[in-house]
Amino acid sequence: MSSTLGTIFRISTWGESHGPALGVVVDGCPSGLELSADEIQVDLDRRRPGQSSLTTPRNEADRVEILSGVFEGKTTGTPISLLVRNTDQRSHDYGDMEFLYRPGHADLAYDLKYGFRDHRGGGRSSARETAARVAAGAIARKILREKCGVEILAWVSQVGSVSAPARDSFPTREEIEASPVRCPDPAASARMAEEVERARSEQDSVGGVVEFAVLNPPAGLGEPVFDRVEAELAKAMLSIPASKGFEIGEGFRAAEMHGSEHNDRILHGPEGFSFATNHAGGTYGGISVGSPIFGRVAFKPTATIGREQQTVSRTGEPAVLKAKGRHDPCVALRAPAVVEAMAALVLADLWLRDRARR
Amino acid sequence: MSSTLGTIFRISTWGESHGPALGVVVDGCPSGLELSADEIQVDLDRRRPGQSSLTTPRNEADRVEILSGVFEGKTTGTPISLLVRNTDQRSHDYGDMEFLYRPGHADLAYDLKYGFRDHRGGGRSSARETAARVAAGAIARKILREKCGVEILAWVSQVGSVSAPARDSFPTREEIEASPVRCPDPAASARMAEEVERARSEQDSVGGVVEFAVLNPPAGLGEPVFDRVEAELAKAMLSIPASKGFEIGEGFRAAEMHGSEHNDRILHGPEGFSFATNHAGGTYGGISVGSPIFGRVAFKPTATIGREQQTVSRTGEPAVLKAKGRHDPCVALRAPAVVEAMAALVLADLWLRDRARR
Amino acid sequence: MSSTLGTIFRISTWGESHGPALGVVVDGCPSGLELSADEIQVDLDRRRPGQSSLTTPRNEADRVEILSGVFEGKTTGTPISLLVRNTDQRSHDYGDMEFLYRPGHADLAYDLKYGFRDHRGGGRSSARETAARVAAGAIARKILREKCGVEILAWVSQVGSVSAPARDSFPTREEIEASPVRCPDPAASARMAEEVERARSEQDSVGGVVEFAVLNPPAGLGEPVFDRVEAELAKAMLSIPASKGFEIGEGFRAAEMHGSEHNDRILHGPEGFSFATNHAGGTYGGISVGSPIFGRVAFKPTATIGREQQTVSRTGEPAVLKAKGRHDPCVALRAPAVVEAMAALVLADLWLRDRARR
Amino acid sequence: MSSTLGTIFRISTWGESHGPALGVVVDGCPSGLELSADEIQVDLDRRRPGQSSLTTPRNEADRVEILSGVFEGKTTGTPISLLVRNTDQRSHDYGDMEFLYRPGHADLAYDLKYGFRDHRGGGRSSARETAARVAAGAIARKILREKCGVEILAWVSQVGSVSAPARDSFPTREEIEASPVRCPDPAASARMAEEVERARSEQDSVGGVVEFAVLNPPAGLGEPVFDRVEAELAKAMLSIPASKGFEIGEGFRAAEMHGSEHNDRILHGPEGFSFATNHAGGTYGGISVGSPIFGRVAFKPTATIGREQQTVSRTGEPAVLKAKGRHDPCVALRAPAVVEAMAALVLADLWLRDRARR
Repeated sequence: MSSTLGTIFRISTWGESHGPALGVVVDGCPSGLELSADEIQVDLDRRRPGQSSLTTPRNEADRVEILSGVFEGKTTGTPISLLVRNTDQRSHDYGDMEFLYRPGHADLAYDLKYGFRDHRGGGRSSARETAARVAAGAIARKILREKCGVEILAWVSQVGSVSAPARDSFPTREEIEASPVRCPDPAASARMAEEVERARSEQDSVGGVVEFAVLNPPAGLGEPVFDRVEAELAKAMLSIPASKGFEIGEGFRAAEMHGSEHNDRILHGPEGFSFATNHAGGTYGGISVGSPIFGRVAFKPTATIGREQQTVSRTGEPAVLKAKGRHDPCVALRAPAVVEAMAALVLADLWLRDRARR
Repeated sequence: MSSTLGTIFRISTWGESHGPALGVVVDGCPSGLELSADEIQVDLDRRRPGQSSLTTPRNEADRVEILSGVFEGKTTGTPISLLVRNTDQRSHDYGDMEFLYRPGHADLAYDLKYGFRDHRGGGRSSARETAARVAAGAIARKILREKCGVEILAWVSQVGSVSAPARDSFPTREEIEASPVRCPDPAASARMAEEVERARSEQDSVGGVVEFAVLNPPAGLGEPVFDRVEAELAKAMLSIPASKGFEIGEGFRAAEMHGSEHNDRILHGPEGFSFATNHAGGTYGGISVGSPIFGRVAFKPTATIGREQQTVSRTGEPAVLKAKGRHDPCVALRAPAVVEAMAALVLADLWLRDRARR
Repeated sequence: MSSTLGTIFRISTWGESHGPALGVVVDGCPSGLELSADEIQVDLDRRRPGQSSLTTPRNEADRVEILSGVFEGKTTGTPISLLVRNTDQRSHDYGDMEFLYRPGHADLAYDLKYGFRDHRGGGRSSARETAARVAAGAIARKILREKCGVEILAWVSQVGSVSAPARDSFPTREEIEASPVRCPDPAASARMAEEVERARSEQDSVGGVVEFAVLNPPAGLGEPVFDRVEAELAKAMLSIPASKGFEIGEGFRAAEMHGSEHNDRILHGPEGFSFATNHAGGTYGGISVGSPIFGRVAFKPTATIGREQQTVSRTGEPAVLKAKGRHDPCVALRAPAVVEAMAALVLADLWLRDRARR
Repeated sequence: MSSTLGTIFRISTWGESHGPALGVVVDGCPSGLELSADEIQVDLDRRRPGQSSLTTPRNEADRVEILSGVFEGKTTGTPISLLVRNTDQRSHDYGDMEFLYRPGHADLAYDLKYGFRDHRGGGRSSARETAARVAAGAIARKILREKCGVEILAWVSQVGSVSAPARDSFPTREEIEASPVRCPDPAASARMAEEVERARSEQDSVGGVVEFAVLNPPAGLGEPVFDRVEAELAKAMLSIPASKGFEIGEGFRAAEMHGSEHNDRILHGPEGFSFATNHAGGTYGGISVGSPIFGRVAFKPTATIGREQQTVSRTGEPAVLKAKGRHDPCVALRAPAVVEAMAALVLADLWLRDRARR
């Protein structure tokens, strides 16, 4: 198991989807930062299921408590322990699962590795575990905003075969939040909602793509050669359940380009150095330069679907799985808050590691 | 800086492209493994420039020496220090570089972060640094082969707008090595070679995509939730210079699929559990199950091109850069050996970490 | 801050002495181990103040809860979150402290480093934080006992100027627990109790020494060159609040010995290799060999004393500190449970790291 | 194996005493520091055997080369690779060793753990490996001196039963270097030299104690709760071959003291806060405050002695070991340079980690 992420700004998450609670310990947060449970709650709420009819109707409340590390409203520099109680579980929905391996899930993999697992829901492999990350990410995000003026955004740019049109500029938080699918283009949003409904009605699921942008990052983030900013982001994003791909800047499109086109021309003016374009995605040699850091994360379709699936039991007998309960037809819709949190966690850690040298 | 990778099988690389040497210290290699400089040399030679006319004609020899950790032909379990002397540098080709920022390179980023850099070639940001990784990867690969029967392959599947056709099965080492561009499809190889030549003749460069496959991996590799096998692979691949994207399994194609199609059906037979398909890429919940682990890595076009580029000097004055010297038109052609090495390093470390629990 | 310890068996502690709770997340525990809150409580109770009139009468209950990582009574291999609520705090006893720097405490040091601290009690520098370590240590101890047959003991061997006589053999748990000062020699126990009472009546405090022994350790623990077993133990012990010295084997007595006397002669018999003596303390070249690993930890006298002390305020004004509240005259009396826990944490991690290579 | 030390200022050492070379990779050194092989050589020479007739007459030269990380005389911020060739080995002196287990050495422990070892000299367990640490320590020491004005000293304070008298103040570098045994008290030096000669003439060895002092340390070093400055120092010192004990401040003497006596009174004047005494050793709650950080390290007598010893062979047969070759009668005499290096490595890393928060 490795539930620890980060070198200086380090988090340790814990908790199963159907255990009593889940949480995270955040170590390395600078002292003196104002912090309240309410502000963390804002980020958590953006992740919650039940936000719209399009995601899982499990209504979990997800209220976060701060158990340490804050005194008189400010961080002390000591570890911050956050806890979120699981209020809405309905274990009996998962009764079947104990004996069957669910296709596309981690069940068999966990048994092969650990020989014993909590079969309820997804245990630790469930997407619910990401609530702890989002809570920790809220702290990281605040550090970056207050100390560096950074803003982090993520939005849905594709659901199934429906893609939002390319844009000239990054969207705003308002445009993203105005859409029930978190796609800043209204027309595409509507078609995406239909795509999700169609999947739900067919008792199926569909994948998607989330784009992210880090605006106004500090220059100098990234620790070559292995902890390049894009490498740390890649690891963070591919640690999100259901993720299957990561791109920085032009990503796979860069493979089709020529150097004369892909190279970002360097300029200089009264405010210093800048770039005419940003095909690179804000990183050169693994280090940020101040340009927006942007990319995309691909998500597979939810493994749990309503329709019948052929599978086997733990003892190898043929079986039919028909999942009851409540499931997201498209986990990508819920991913933006998690993608933002992961970006914040990575960049806060890299920022602190870079400060060690200044 | 972070030039260390791995938790138990840990490597520390060092060296600049135009310094006297480069190398790596490998810690955590089990004792008793037969190891010679010659076998490491085989992997290094697959990376060397000068292999064909399509890559950089710098003829570097790249002979590796083992300075510690091996006694009477076997590893002792103590750190293995590998050193590769830089024999063919021609520093004067880089004379201009001291004063100009090269578009697409790490020059400006390094100055913003460190305030001082070795301007010769790419210094530490150069792709040459990957020679050290390939040397270490040779050891990791041997451990996996001898202890687990694993085989790791990587090949070029796209150069610019030329893609190799989809295949039913993974290629063989022979098919890959038979091609000067390391693409196992002869027809596509020829078109790719033309694409590269065209770029060279236009004093430009072109990007590409490398695919990889890990055959017969042990089940149980990966340490959820953060050190999932695909997350560690993503970080390793995005730490390769010029990489811009990573996919596991279907990657971005999974975003367009439905769960009923993407889910890999689980089977059971006399030899245990298996899967009818492998859309997932050999990993569920971040843990391997024994199915091939496969994916793709996107590479941008080489930043250094022969044609003139507008840029600025270190002091912000407009300047024209016309790079002399010898440069790869397509760095992706050289990447397969590096991609294989990174996969080996990640999996050897995860294998050792998994053994801690058995 | 670094509240994380261990590489594979890794713990992250959190919580202030006067915050709502404290706890620890334990990552890397193998799956399938039977574990209950009650068994962890046993170890915690050995640490609790209020055990005898000789230690702090704060009656804290210290009841531990398991919030994750255990399912149907067995560990799942996922992180185990333990929480201990602070029930008995009496903050008002520390009212003065907000404005004064207490001699011998971490107050000034924390302000110099963090600029902001929780002035209640010792905040995170308080010995109370060790409750979280003892809880985690209970899990480590169980792993070692069940998988390797290891037993870990610690006892008080010195209080102030009173030392227990040298012994031929290690004491038993029963001998240690029979004494209110946890010294296995009854006569010395009585004199130690008097020493502590004298200190209390003089509104002063006194230091002490704790000895530890690890019986039947596996051979092969320790990762040279830096993570030698004695080095990891030294770090763990010197991380305990109030510790000031560490010895392994003969410790400082070895400095006076000759090699002909200190060398432990190696023997061989039907059961394999053994040693005629054990001056080394069970480790050679930083690796255990199966002989008992033993040593000593020195503790300074409690900094908080009842008598008046001259000091300064946060603004540098002269002040007099007269601590009210309830304080241990000799923190060494409470240390054995913590010393045992630290030894267990270190050895469990080294055991898992060693297994990676077998 | 763990040959890596440090979090930000991180070193990886490699090399066996009788292999072709040994060395270290230093990662995390800030850029812009002037550095030359000659300055590193000065520290190495203080460690070299052959310095006086009292230590091993192996004359090794020990010339260090810088292979990376320095450009035009200044560090670039990239990893610095240092290499020291082994020039004087005389392997044939160790011919016997292949088949016998030497008492007090790591031979048997290494075989139990690794099953295969380099029998020549001590392999990796040899004190010679410390040359790599001293080389890296020279860089750390320079950073601390130039950035913080820190001075680090270590000297011999005890050899066998001969102790130097207590002092009112720390010695100077000149006083230490004036003595062939590195004890700043001339009378004690003479008696120590006799003690060593007596041991040598008796074909025996004797232990010793090294004291260290860090003058003018920055305040704020140390990362509670586990990476306290004294804990990190303890681990570093107990990783030195032959070390058996560590003390900070009063060490084991603190156990005999009362709080009213041990507490260091806090003062305030025009230059800020200070302390009337320094029983603590410069650290409170694990964090430095600017007072000197001082302590002691105990060393056992050299295991290799000239006189005959009963032992067994690798196959368990009784045997007699009579070591030929050249050996130190007192390894503590050579330890000061290593103790200083370890202190420098720890404090440089803690300084960089602390800067991350400012």
